Amino acid sequence: MTAPLSVSSCPVFSAADACVDGVAVQPLPNSRKVHVTGSRPDIRAPMREIRQGDTPASYGGGVNPPIFVYDCSGPYTDPDVSIDIRSGLPPLREPWIEERGDSAALPALGSEYGRRRLADPALAALARQPRRALPGKHVTQMHYARNGIVTPEMEFVALRENMNRRNYLQSLRESGSGGEKMAARLMRQHPGAAFGARIPEEITPEFVRAEIACGRAILPANINHPESEPMIIGRNFLTKINANIGNSALVSSIAEEVDKMIWAIRWGGDTVMDLSTGRNIHETREWILRNSPVPVGTVPIYQALEKVDGKAEELTWEVFRDTLIEQAEQGVDYFTLHAGVLISHIPLTANRLTGIVSRGGAILAKWCLAHHRENFLYTHFEDICEIMSAYDVAFSLGDGLRPGSIHDANDAAQLAELQTLGELTEIAWKHDAQTMIEGPGHVPLHLIRENMELELAWCKEAPFYTLGPLVTDIAPGYDHLSSAIGAAQIGWRGTAMLCYVTPKEHLGLPDKNDVKEGIITYKLAAHAADLAKGHPGAQIRDNALSKARYEFRWEDQFNLGLDPDRARAFHDETLPREAAKSAHFCSMCGPRFCSMKITQEVREFAQAQSTQK
Amino acid sequence: MTAPLSVSSCPVFSAADACVDGVAVQPLPNSRKVHVTGSRPDIRAPMREIRQGDTPASYGGGVNPPIFVYDCSGPYTDPDVSIDIRSGLPPLREPWIEERGDSAALPALGSEYGRRRLADPALAALARQPRRALPGKHVTQMHYARNGIVTPEMEFVALRENMNRRNYLQSLRESGSGGEKMAARLMRQHPGAAFGARIPEEITPEFVRAEIACGRAILPANINHPESEPMIIGRNFLTKINANIGNSALVSSIAEEVDKMIWAIRWGGDTVMDLSTGRNIHETREWILRNSPVPVGTVPIYQALEKVDGKAEELTWEVFRDTLIEQAEQGVDYFTLHAGVLISHIPLTANRLTGIVSRGGAILAKWCLAHHRENFLYTHFEDICEIMSAYDVAFSLGDGLRPGSIHDANDAAQLAELQTLGELTEIAWKHDAQTMIEGPGHVPLHLIRENMELELAWCKEAPFYTLGPLVTDIAPGYDHLSSAIGAAQIGWRGTAMLCYVTPKEHLGLPDKNDVKEGIITYKLAAHAADLAKGHPGAQIRDNALSKARYEFRWEDQFNLGLDPDRARAFHDETLPREAAKSAHFCSMCGPRFCSMKITQEVREFAQAQSTQK
Repeated sequence: MTAPLSVSSCPVFSAADACVDGVAVQPLPNSRKVHVTGSRPDIRAPMREIRQGDTPASYGGGVNPPIFVYDCSGPYTDPDVSIDIRSGLPPLREPWIEERGDSAALPALGSEYGRRRLADPALAALARQPRRALPGKHVTQMHYARNGIVTPEMEFVALRENMNRRNYLQSLRESGSGGEKMAARLMRQHPGAAFGARIPEEITPEFVRAEIACGRAILPANINHPESEPMIIGRNFLTKINANIGNSALVSSIAEEVDKMIWAIRWGGDTVMDLSTGRNIHETREWILRNSPVPVGTVPIYQALEKVDGKAEELTWEVFRDTLIEQAEQGVDYFTLHAGVLISHIPLTANRLTGIVSRGGAILAKWCLAHHRENFLYTHFEDICEIMSAYDVAFSLGDGLRPGSIHDANDAAQLAELQTLGELTEIAWKHDAQTMIEGPGHVPLHLIRENMELELAWCKEAPFYTLGPLVTDIAPGYDHLSSAIGAAQIGWRGTAMLCYVTPKEHLGLPDKNDVKEGIITYKLAAHAADLAKGHPGAQIRDNALSKARYEFRWEDQFNLGLDPDRARAFHDETLPREAAKSAHFCSMCGPRFCSMKITQEVREFAQAQSTQK
Repeated sequence: MTAPLSVSSCPVFSAADACVDGVAVQPLPNSRKVHVTGSRPDIRAPMREIRQGDTPASYGGGVNPPIFVYDCSGPYTDPDVSIDIRSGLPPLREPWIEERGDSAALPALGSEYGRRRLADPALAALARQPRRALPGKHVTQMHYARNGIVTPEMEFVALRENMNRRNYLQSLRESGSGGEKMAARLMRQHPGAAFGARIPEEITPEFVRAEIACGRAILPANINHPESEPMIIGRNFLTKINANIGNSALVSSIAEEVDKMIWAIRWGGDTVMDLSTGRNIHETREWILRNSPVPVGTVPIYQALEKVDGKAEELTWEVFRDTLIEQAEQGVDYFTLHAGVLISHIPLTANRLTGIVSRGGAILAKWCLAHHRENFLYTHFEDICEIMSAYDVAFSLGDGLRPGSIHDANDAAQLAELQTLGELTEIAWKHDAQTMIEGPGHVPLHLIRENMELELAWCKEAPFYTLGPLVTDIAPGYDHLSSAIGAAQIGWRGTAMLCYVTPKEHLGLPDKNDVKEGIITYKLAAHAADLAKGHPGAQIRDNALSKARYEFRWEDQFNLGLDPDRARAFHDETLPREAAKSAHFCSMCGPRFCSMKITQEVREFAQAQSTQK
């Protein structure tokens, strides 16, 4: 099934491969997109409302109010919006950016490379004029926050994080099945163990501002990516996840990557990173950005290296700087920059089992050794800060020396770099540049804590953004899982965003199935972390789903889960008929052995006994 | 592909469905079965030896000695053994049991039900005379251990747990690639955080004895299951996993279940539980036992309930007792018994969201309420102990009141039962009965610790055996994963055996694919726990695999992993040609961006620089 997107006239998307998967743009089952409106009509935070069936009479009957869940899918799952990927998404934030009056559309592109690409007919459809801060201005959310300004973006985020919880709780009390007692049960949540995170009962716009001002959270929002729906990354907010997409030199096309992005956000990717390394890096990114409602991150050194024909030693600050401006003007929301790979750290990797496994780290190490000079990202760090603040690109300070094996976990090289990242964070903050810190990698369960504690101490609570970590090396083909164990653990300890790992990690480029598997796996890990931290309201969805399970509301059990399609398919493998959806048992135990059914009998029996007395 | 098993003449296995999957009985790639022989020639602990390729010349060349991994697959992966499931596996332990002279073959079956089934032609092929302890004798491994006897079973276990580590380390030092330095790296392991577990560098038979004697470990070894290869469950040994199989009233046949058992042990199931609830419970179990090289557990109440036509209130001690004897004489190695579900605990479940989710727990709760009497498993506990000690069936004290949702985790009902299980443990130990304790269920990450700590305190370090726990309820279709996050955590904290959960949990009966997915997931979680505890030698496999990865030895990377078939298939999806197996890059980054390759260049560059000076 394919959506009726007319893209046949687009020079990049051939008619054959341009169709966006129609499955990816349908609302999820029993769900609809709703918006919570803020102090002005154009602040509309999106949510997904999941409707539930009534409780069967045998369980006492009654209404189960809809629950609201965080929704990253943007306009794609909104039937009211017509999608045309040739023209991109509506520029939601444009009026907010314009009315601040501190930036202006540029008469010409700031990067030489960008100007050359302007002539590319493939991009004609998307031609737009980029903005830049007026001279001397910082247009970052951190700058506004520090000046006491609550931006529309911050208010949007506050509404979004609260997930319409008050509305749900009110409906529960007013009309929920099972009366007051059941309402209390459905609202109950275990107190968490938060290791110093302090999440308020309700997120206010002022709280968002304060967290951004002190650097404990970032709100990635490049002024050239007005299509993005504001979101926040910080330990006092919901744990977020990132999905990596991007073609490599060997496989996949632009259309495939746009398709993967839409697929990734459908299942819950809070940001996507475009890690393309093949041809058409610039074009792929442009198409992704214009169609992405979530922040987009990149690793600019990949493209810079393409520009010098793959020869690391030929990289220059000038080529790199031009690349940063090129991408900042396209609208990239955060840059991974391996500015902490110092020449003095490189010898610390000599006794590793797996050396330097970060591509960016390896490229820069090679450059440093070739020139016997310090990493130019480090020596030009303040120049970079100025670029970041002129567009509001956030730093994602890369862990170029992250361990690539259990053996190399928490070693001197890794920790030396982390300490340098802490120093760079303070410099970035001087320039009002939003900053997060990337983390490992491969770390056994018991050494995860040290990673988080050192990050909080050395990087002054700047949001931690980790890849996994994988807790063992012995499971190629299952590294989404090996890393989800570590991700849940480090998320619980305070990591703000978890970069997904797919089952193909170490083996090949993920396809759409792998992307979905990675996303759901990480949504699960992030949610486990939120529950353990005691994030207010996190348990609402668990409680609702468990009630549905107990009452044999199969459809609701599927629909309240992270992947309704798979839950239904698994159920139907053994009991495909529609009647089984209202059966009070499943194929695991059969009707006679169903403990849920017996429990209900126990309750009824006890009830009858006590009535007789 | 099917193995040449001639079963067409067997009355249970029709020619159509009786063939054991030939794929399940091939040795894994580059692997062979080896045995380490103990103090007498018939003590031969099995292991899987995985051969590795040489290090390529560009990485310095040299030999990579084979590594040894724990092997649960029994004779099935041994090409020297011819398999005939009609006659069952060779009774490995028979001489050991006989020479102890404390048991005798019975003139007639001890259970009435068993005697009736004797006439069943379907079982004629497997007819055998069961053994029982001589009057007044306890034939349990705990009894021997307490009397200072190191049994052949204990010595077998010691050899097995050490996994031929000394041999590997010696080969490494003598001939390993990369010389002394690399050997040191490959042997290196992070010190663990073991929370009071004390695992010695080398497991001696005497250590095994001492751990069993004090109840901190069990060695399930029913004298009527002489086919089993001894294994041990305890926090000072490798973390084990269990796979549930068994047909339900709705689907699957005996042959399918035997097939699943063979499949489960191939991928690493340390024990299997036969949870059949449909027709032919007795026959299914007989076929599984005679062909299982791993201990088999059951939940006898399932069969007892079948005998009273599914009416819980009609259960009697007599029917139950007969079932215990029937199954003990078939050779079941451990029984899940919900003896801790006391009538006084039942009201504690009234405010739960999901009531009683254990089938056994629900059945017994119903019985208690129907009769207004205490659980007969509790009132007859000492009688049960006598049966357990007469055959060496181990207790697996069931958690009939385990939480079925995050909401119900660690509640009063669950903890009251756990405390009762602690009391029962001491009674069982009075009778020399080996005992482990079952645990939850659904528990958020931060409440897992309390479960483990209370179990250790209340049940005096008797081995904990947990189902997951699942750390969130919101992921039907992914509960293997949700539970693996919890399993790794609780395993790290000291749980001795992890009961797997498959992706079908809550939705349907697992098929063979689900069984494998569940097993690999749990092997991964158990290994993550071993690494975190600092289990000696646990990191050997990670180190070897990471070295292979670094040196682009693709075949070794596949073969050293938990699932060589999937790793290879994933790799081949994008790079199917044989030449790619020796390529120094993969499809994720392509040749230009491979950080591993660049690291190697960095090393060579640094080397050249230092030589010039």
